[in-house]
Amino acid sequence: MAKEFVEKITSMDDDFAQWYTDIVTKAKLADYSSVRGSMIIHPYGYKIWENIRDELDRKIKQTGHENVYMPLLIPESLLQKEKDHIAGFAPEVAWVTHGGEEELQERLCIRPTSEVLFGEYYKNVIHSYRDLPKLYNQWSNVVRWEKTTRPFLRTLEFLWQEGHTCHETEEEAVEETEKMLNVYASLCEDLLAIPVIKGKKTEKEKFAGATFTYTVESLMHDGKALQTATSHFLGDGFAKAFGIEFLNRDGNLQTVQQTSWGFTTRIIGAMIMVHSDNRGLVLPPKAAPTQVMIVPIASHKEGVLDHAYEIKNSLKDSVRVEIDASDKKPGWKFNEYEMQGVPLRLEVGPRDIEKEQVMFVRRDTGEKRQVSVHDLKSEVEKLLADIHDELYKKASLYLKEKTLIAFTLADMENFLREDNYLIQAMWCGNKDCENEIKEKTGATSRCIPFEQESIAETCVCCGKQAEDMVYWAKAY
Amino acid sequence: MAKEFVEKITSMDDDFAQWYTDIVTKAKLADYSSVRGSMIIHPYGYKIWENIRDELDRKIKQTGHENVYMPLLIPESLLQKEKDHIAGFAPEVAWVTHGGEEELQERLCIRPTSEVLFGEYYKNVIHSYRDLPKLYNQWSNVVRWEKTTRPFLRTLEFLWQEGHTCHETEEEAVEETEKMLNVYASLCEDLLAIPVIKGKKTEKEKFAGATFTYTVESLMHDGKALQTATSHFLGDGFAKAFGIEFLNRDGNLQTVQQTSWGFTTRIIGAMIMVHSDNRGLVLPPKAAPTQVMIVPIASHKEGVLDHAYEIKNSLKDSVRVEIDASDKKPGWKFNEYEMQGVPLRLEVGPRDIEKEQVMFVRRDTGEKRQVSVHDLKSEVEKLLADIHDELYKKASLYLKEKTLIAFTLADMENFLREDNYLIQAMWCGNKDCENEIKEKTGATSRCIPFEQESIAETCVCCGKQAEDMVYWAKAY
Repeated sequence: MAKEFVEKITSMDDDFAQWYTDIVTKAKLADYSSVRGSMIIHPYGYKIWENIRDELDRKIKQTGHENVYMPLLIPESLLQKEKDHIAGFAPEVAWVTHGGEEELQERLCIRPTSEVLFGEYYKNVIHSYRDLPKLYNQWSNVVRWEKTTRPFLRTLEFLWQEGHTCHETEEEAVEETEKMLNVYASLCEDLLAIPVIKGKKTEKEKFAGATFTYTVESLMHDGKALQTATSHFLGDGFAKAFGIEFLNRDGNLQTVQQTSWGFTTRIIGAMIMVHSDNRGLVLPPKAAPTQVMIVPIASHKEGVLDHAYEIKNSLKDSVRVEIDASDKKPGWKFNEYEMQGVPLRLEVGPRDIEKEQVMFVRRDTGEKRQVSVHDLKSEVEKLLADIHDELYKKASLYLKEKTLIAFTLADMENFLREDNYLIQAMWCGNKDCENEIKEKTGATSRCIPFEQESIAETCVCCGKQAEDMVYWAKAY
Repeated sequence: MAKEFVEKITSMDDDFAQWYTDIVTKAKLADYSSVRGSMIIHPYGYKIWENIRDELDRKIKQTGHENVYMPLLIPESLLQKEKDHIAGFAPEVAWVTHGGEEELQERLCIRPTSEVLFGEYYKNVIHSYRDLPKLYNQWSNVVRWEKTTRPFLRTLEFLWQEGHTCHETEEEAVEETEKMLNVYASLCEDLLAIPVIKGKKTEKEKFAGATFTYTVESLMHDGKALQTATSHFLGDGFAKAFGIEFLNRDGNLQTVQQTSWGFTTRIIGAMIMVHSDNRGLVLPPKAAPTQVMIVPIASHKEGVLDHAYEIKNSLKDSVRVEIDASDKKPGWKFNEYEMQGVPLRLEVGPRDIEKEQVMFVRRDTGEKRQVSVHDLKSEVEKLLADIHDELYKKASLYLKEKTLIAFTLADMENFLREDNYLIQAMWCGNKDCENEIKEKTGATSRCIPFEQESIAETCVCCGKQAEDMVYWAKAY
């Protein structure tokens, strides 16, 4: 039976994890499936992904990259070619052992990422410096055999794009690594209103097989951090393992320098945990499938529906606008589209027609505003832009408020004992300290930020000479 | 070393299969990978797929469907729920038996198609007639463990969309089946200039688990047929197996009626084998990544390059136009873009600038034409439209010429002994005759066309009363 009421969700203060799950299912983003750890992405969730994907695809193409498609399955021997890589991924790949009735001579894994497939491919197609750079990207699904999973945040299978590039020089490859990190950062900030911290992962936290990993980190409502995207400088590690060589400008054989970078459906989880509230999903306008939902009031009265459709038509070229002309009660509709995070509700009733105005209600602040029908288009555009800015501002403020400085390990333990924070603390660069911090506080190093501040001279853990300021947090 | 010459391809008259493979690799569409039967889709091939996919996605949404995403992996018990379906697909699925180090309690197959996943999902979300129709589609990769494979035509893994819908009545579901077949037919004809025959598959050739299957068939250059897309009416077979029931308008429990329909990367193989020639790929303009390639002549002479870029700029809003300003010889460029099937070449040299004209060369006919720079935009649009029409006309004529009528099995055997044709012949509806025809001639029934012609009274094979005129052919 179709539900005629909107269910309430758990408050994030009572149970953050349940609040998250409630939003995922009740805003109709995704659902669990009978396949452990795999999700079903509903139309509404998939439309959000399409908006994000299309914008990222545009940026990837604009920066000179081309899309390709590599196989889903990787022979075991190929996965083993780069030793750090296989060590990192072997525990979490799914193995295909049978095709039809027949047992395979060599096992195939479902790609957890495609460095090795691109490695083999590049070895075959790159011969001269004239073949460089190679700037390829692919949109695909990958599988990682995770033990504990949550929709969008950590799933057995997820959707993503993975860029894989080859360059003549280290300098050029490092520049590419940085460029793509900036693409991700601007996507988070400009499309999704999510503030990010850009930095470098520690050796312990870097990608298996990379020389170094750049990351964009963001802070969730519960004070935990989430790695929103990463961009890896691979150096010549994979290239040497695969023999990707070219004749350089001096006529000598040289090994290419590589990068890889990825952005996943996980971002939808981040978007939920950065913006949403106890009434449901809050969507940043640029990612919202429906930016304006028109709800006719007393729609049986003459002229109301016609007027509502006229308004829809006048807006449909500039924003994504829908109308709910169903016979459900306006109150039900208000709740439903609040739950679904539609940025703007537009109410139009008999009195509004007379007055040549409509009523706007913002999802983020609840603020109501009368607008003349003659200023509709420009007002809608202004309101949507304003919602984006406000969401970004609010999230930035939260990030600032939830960031604490720690001078000692005891500080960190105290801060993180009963709540979650993003911690700024100096670090000596030693993995032992990193391990001890994690053991005592539950926090991992999130990144060594590009924007450094010298908080103290000594490491928060061992007290020896510090190298960098590092962000630490419990993380998704 | 970058190749400085364009390699010749095998003539289709000498070796059709090799001609096909040559085009796939030398026009840089796709390549073999180290994963048996899987291909690497190059940027150029992938751009063609993006053009086709985007247009089909537009049509799918325009007809009221929404995109979703279902898991890649299917538990064995779920696949077995519909008995005809598992019988059809069991021999050709890939089985995952291990996740990381751990052996799974239940095997998972990589989806060969997703009827069972949608079946389980629909059972959970459909309760009332108000929840119907459900019109979902997904873009995904699927794996079928094929013995012999060829790029695009038959690969272990391929990309596709699969639509899955639920309806209140049989009538509505049959209408949907037909509607989506028409979407596919118009995509083939209007976008790809491929003429198709619309019809119904015989019982023997229908989809495993369907009540009936509609198909669009086309004829390749070698006289073999290719099934370009199919649309299935599933009746209530899956729905009963999965228990997809709803409270109908009378308040009684009723089982839904379903459809499914799919369109794959195989279409790129069809496009090659319908339009291309012995000089390489010929692309229908609407699917071509580059519709117009500008080749500057004597580009070192003053003004030539500037003029070429001016022309590019004047065209770039209306067509997909590129310029090759590299230092390669014009002759090399001519050959290269002929190999790649770019519909129009635009040459611009010093004399053209003086005369305020450019030279157009058509890929399909080789025809050259001088065009005034003042009529450029409209002339390019006209030429591209004309190329599309000519390709369609030529392919239609070929289809007509290669279609023969057979009255007896001996006719069919004679026709198909040394060459391939599309054969029209009457059929009694008996599977024994269908099997005998296949055994004796190698031809399978392609479809019972919607446009029937009464050729004779009796079955081409057994001589008994005929039911339908059927198209027969050897097929991909």
